[in-house]
Amino acid sequence: MLIPSLVVFSLLFVSSFASVQDFCVADLKQSDTPSGFPCKDPKKVTEADFVYSGIGKAGNTTNLIKAAVTPAFTAQFPGVNGLGISIARLDLAVGGVIPMHTHPGASELLVVIEGTICAGFISSANTVYFKTLNKGDIMVFPQGLLHFQLNSGKSSAQAFVSFGSAVPGLQITDFALFANELPTELVAATTFLDVAQIKKLKGVLGGSN
Amino acid sequence: MLIPSLVVFSLLFVSSFASVQDFCVADLKQSDTPSGFPCKDPKKVTEADFVYSGIGKAGNTTNLIKAAVTPAFTAQFPGVNGLGISIARLDLAVGGVIPMHTHPGASELLVVIEGTICAGFISSANTVYFKTLNKGDIMVFPQGLLHFQLNSGKSSAQAFVSFGSAVPGLQITDFALFANELPTELVAATTFLDVAQIKKLKGVLGGSN
Amino acid sequence: MLIPSLVVFSLLFVSSFASVQDFCVADLKQSDTPSGFPCKDPKKVTEADFVYSGIGKAGNTTNLIKAAVTPAFTAQFPGVNGLGISIARLDLAVGGVIPMHTHPGASELLVVIEGTICAGFISSANTVYFKTLNKGDIMVFPQGLLHFQLNSGKSSAQAFVSFGSAVPGLQITDFALFANELPTELVAATTFLDVAQIKKLKGVLGGSN
Amino acid sequence: MLIPSLVVFSLLFVSSFASVQDFCVADLKQSDTPSGFPCKDPKKVTEADFVYSGIGKAGNTTNLIKAAVTPAFTAQFPGVNGLGISIARLDLAVGGVIPMHTHPGASELLVVIEGTICAGFISSANTVYFKTLNKGDIMVFPQGLLHFQLNSGKSSAQAFVSFGSAVPGLQITDFALFANELPTELVAATTFLDVAQIKKLKGVLGGSN
Amino acid sequence: MLIPSLVVFSLLFVSSFASVQDFCVADLKQSDTPSGFPCKDPKKVTEADFVYSGIGKAGNTTNLIKAAVTPAFTAQFPGVNGLGISIARLDLAVGGVIPMHTHPGASELLVVIEGTICAGFISSANTVYFKTLNKGDIMVFPQGLLHFQLNSGKSSAQAFVSFGSAVPGLQITDFALFANELPTELVAATTFLDVAQIKKLKGVLGGSN
Amino acid sequence: MLIPSLVVFSLLFVSSFASVQDFCVADLKQSDTPSGFPCKDPKKVTEADFVYSGIGKAGNTTNLIKAAVTPAFTAQFPGVNGLGISIARLDLAVGGVIPMHTHPGASELLVVIEGTICAGFISSANTVYFKTLNKGDIMVFPQGLLHFQLNSGKSSAQAFVSFGSAVPGLQITDFALFANELPTELVAATTFLDVAQIKKLKGVLGGSN
Repeated sequence: MLIPSLVVFSLLFVSSFASVQDFCVADLKQSDTPSGFPCKDPKKVTEADFVYSGIGKAGNTTNLIKAAVTPAFTAQFPGVNGLGISIARLDLAVGGVIPMHTHPGASELLVVIEGTICAGFISSANTVYFKTLNKGDIMVFPQGLLHFQLNSGKSSAQAFVSFGSAVPGLQITDFALFANELPTELVAATTFLDVAQIKKLKGVLGGSN
Repeated sequence: MLIPSLVVFSLLFVSSFASVQDFCVADLKQSDTPSGFPCKDPKKVTEADFVYSGIGKAGNTTNLIKAAVTPAFTAQFPGVNGLGISIARLDLAVGGVIPMHTHPGASELLVVIEGTICAGFISSANTVYFKTLNKGDIMVFPQGLLHFQLNSGKSSAQAFVSFGSAVPGLQITDFALFANELPTELVAATTFLDVAQIKKLKGVLGGSN
Repeated sequence: MLIPSLVVFSLLFVSSFASVQDFCVADLKQSDTPSGFPCKDPKKVTEADFVYSGIGKAGNTTNLIKAAVTPAFTAQFPGVNGLGISIARLDLAVGGVIPMHTHPGASELLVVIEGTICAGFISSANTVYFKTLNKGDIMVFPQGLLHFQLNSGKSSAQAFVSFGSAVPGLQITDFALFANELPTELVAATTFLDVAQIKKLKGVLGGSN
Repeated sequence: MLIPSLVVFSLLFVSSFASVQDFCVADLKQSDTPSGFPCKDPKKVTEADFVYSGIGKAGNTTNLIKAAVTPAFTAQFPGVNGLGISIARLDLAVGGVIPMHTHPGASELLVVIEGTICAGFISSANTVYFKTLNKGDIMVFPQGLLHFQLNSGKSSAQAFVSFGSAVPGLQITDFALFANELPTELVAATTFLDVAQIKKLKGVLGGSN
Repeated sequence: MLIPSLVVFSLLFVSSFASVQDFCVADLKQSDTPSGFPCKDPKKVTEADFVYSGIGKAGNTTNLIKAAVTPAFTAQFPGVNGLGISIARLDLAVGGVIPMHTHPGASELLVVIEGTICAGFISSANTVYFKTLNKGDIMVFPQGLLHFQLNSGKSSAQAFVSFGSAVPGLQITDFALFANELPTELVAATTFLDVAQIKKLKGVLGGSN
Repeated sequence: MLIPSLVVFSLLFVSSFASVQDFCVADLKQSDTPSGFPCKDPKKVTEADFVYSGIGKAGNTTNLIKAAVTPAFTAQFPGVNGLGISIARLDLAVGGVIPMHTHPGASELLVVIEGTICAGFISSANTVYFKTLNKGDIMVFPQGLLHFQLNSGKSSAQAFVSFGSAVPGLQITDFALFANELPTELVAATTFLDVAQIKKLKGVLGGSN
């Protein structure tokens, strides 16, 4: 006679806790908040919300940098919203490079899946830390510091980079300086670069002014 | 005439900020703190502190679970101390399984490198979310919830799992219940398992009492 | 003549700060966010929002575990939303037990109000820490670790358990494993439990598959 | 022959994770840090570190306020260090009062154990929220706001107050203003209180200047 | 031939990251959340959202305290929402005083722009720390502790105070005690002040009961 | 007879809470931790620990950038350790510029004290937000994003910049790229800058390789 009473207990008990927040799959149609997007109705969440196949294929590296970054941040993979973790895939063809950049919102941890990658970062004290990484090696890049990765081998390379935030951000220095309407004179004044150099890169990257 | 003055400026400027904290490589000989280990002297930090090769090789899967977990947390890779990120490698031979477990301190993000993995987690509302993952698929496991991974394919499988903490912790339910001196009667009273079942698993996993 | 000017000052001053956020009583009708529910209009908040009587009475312990957990988390007591604290009441009849469980989102602090309780937790290193507690004793259970409480005395027992989060969560291991549709073969593969044992508990707890 | 291999696995596996941080019992002899005290050597930690009996007895209420606060913060109960939770016991004789005070570091959740308590807090907008609480009622006091508790019944009262921090702090307004060497003229200038009133309370509370 | 391909790359690349959260300008019309207000549509954000001129002019000091506080918190300057920083301007005429107060949500850093200011705070241990500050001096006031500032010079004084939160809050002790309907008997019981003193200040500050 | 008993109460009460952490003045001789430096013995802390005069005077702007940054971070002002706030002074002679830079650890809030400053930042989406600021204007710069300030007026300018961290960090892009031993070929590969341009700036800023 013990079984029925436990079943009753079980059902009541579960319903008491039904609104506990284990996860918060992003409802991207609502406004974002400082802690992430509002949650999709938990009753409509399925296993598909926690799985993503979008970084399973190599990105297109037939471009100038011969490389591709394929992110799985909240915008692409709403299941990580609020969970403090995200990932991206790096593909580098021979000669490929992920240009100097920062992630304003998180530290990064890279693991080499294939090939040879020269990676490094620069500290606030302007010290450079860089090393050649082989398959299976990992490297950590502290939050907000300039860093880069380039294929230093003779075949294509691949890596996964994880972040301690669902929205780590990405600011590529060249794009920030040369791919927008920031006036050439302001770029020159704040970087000491020659005007000709700036205009050349603005031309390449689509900037104006 | 411009160069000397800037050099002077540069040197002064850099020294002003020399003690800024970009990173905090763990000095494992000092006592831990709630926020992580005290920092190794920044002057003695080199690029080697940020790179680790210990998860580059497959773990030994010739054991009962036909699987291995190889972590790169602060204890193994002091460079991640304080940076809110870490990683581990999973190797699963045919039939291999990472038993039901939790990470008390962080959410987990898995990416399949090779093979086919059936992975899932259970929410506080006791709902089960599980799916079969192929190479390149990712899945996120919210902090603190029971989850598992098993090789559901016909060849060996490999995955990397990232965590939003340098010390995510790992509690394997079976080891917690059966691999220590927790008295059988307490296990029975708190899990409803039969005493014979408990004694059998204590025998296998090395528990006593 | 001093009074009028101060009154004016006072009124202006207060209105300047009227939108400061001291609290954020949950508006449970809106979507949850990673930091908690959106706030009820502060103008409609009254003292009733900060007081709750729902844990004043003993829970019903006429069930298999001879125990009851009565929570005052955000879902039951919206006043704690965003404040990083919550509480629950434990009632244990003679022989009662709160089964092995975890709180994914917070550490717990128990204070015995009545009776004698044997309580314990298991660390990531599989070390067991347990002790018999008497009236007025307190015990702390670190976040995310398996723990349990059982009435080890000859009369009923009562305790209050506080949490460092408004939504600590609760995952009872048995319910997670046996009270849902997680296939028996998956439970067996990931827990090493015998199939007969699993089926028996699924029967008791209402699970299927 | 399966058992030996699993035992080997188990032992190796456990040692891999031995340094994971589940808890950080305070070593009060070392210097504090912004996140709490450095941790006692985990190998020397026992169940006694997680249990405390110091709030089991009523505090001495034979004093002017006819009340006593008995804390179990990190200083008294090192087991809560780093875990974001702590507790204190309130005892109020008939007519007893916990004077107007704040906790700079955490919100508070009070549960009445015995008697009748009138409790309240004041918001930044100077709105007052107060109510009479009976046995089993709970009330939450948002972080940093002025609040008070007083025995409004005809018998002694008792309560437990929990905090979402191991070091919530406690600043009793009267003691801050009148129990130290803050010059009377500064108290007068910053509180608008009459000098005679200030001198009277300085006399009672042991202040000077 | 290289330019066109990079332009294409650039455009694709940028769009991939368009939803990254760099900032979250408050949409004050939506409900607040524990982490701050929901974000204004990023496409409608302009440089005007990050600039504010409201603290450029001296506040009106022709009042009893001969002082003014002009805040730039989220309510006045939505651009700081979610960014963990805010500021206010203090103007003190000769004899002016910012009365004893606390900020429940953040530490404060004051910099003297003009004049001479005597500033201080009181710790939980009731120790007083106060000093006379001159132009260019800075002083830090730890979160939640009672503090004050008064013009101790012979000319008007000005300061800027920064906070490590966009919503630091402000509770002026006198207004909390005397500018509302908190019953005189409760104020007397919880502060030990004489009833006549309380009634006098309630009269001045507009309180009742 | 009431006074003596309260004095006794007061003394006991204060000692009970003597170890509460209100602040944590940095002991810079001990090792840093991820949450900041260990605390100086609270008994040796005086008001001098919370006051700093080092940013009261203009920095030396007789250098190439005609500007100076004078910080009051933990290294210069140990009183802010652990309090989540810090400040720096900017002095810009006519034509002065604070070059393009980031703060990896905090958002920044600038207030113009004197003169006219053109300030701006660039988002992850490469959108530029910049504006001319006059005396009393404030501008906020979100964490980790590239930003700059330059004197756009005809007289010297001064500003204070506050940060929501005691160790915000500072990475000046030019110094990171050109003032160290990062090989020219790596700079070229990761920034697309011409080798001649890189060598020129390395020469000016003291870099090698």
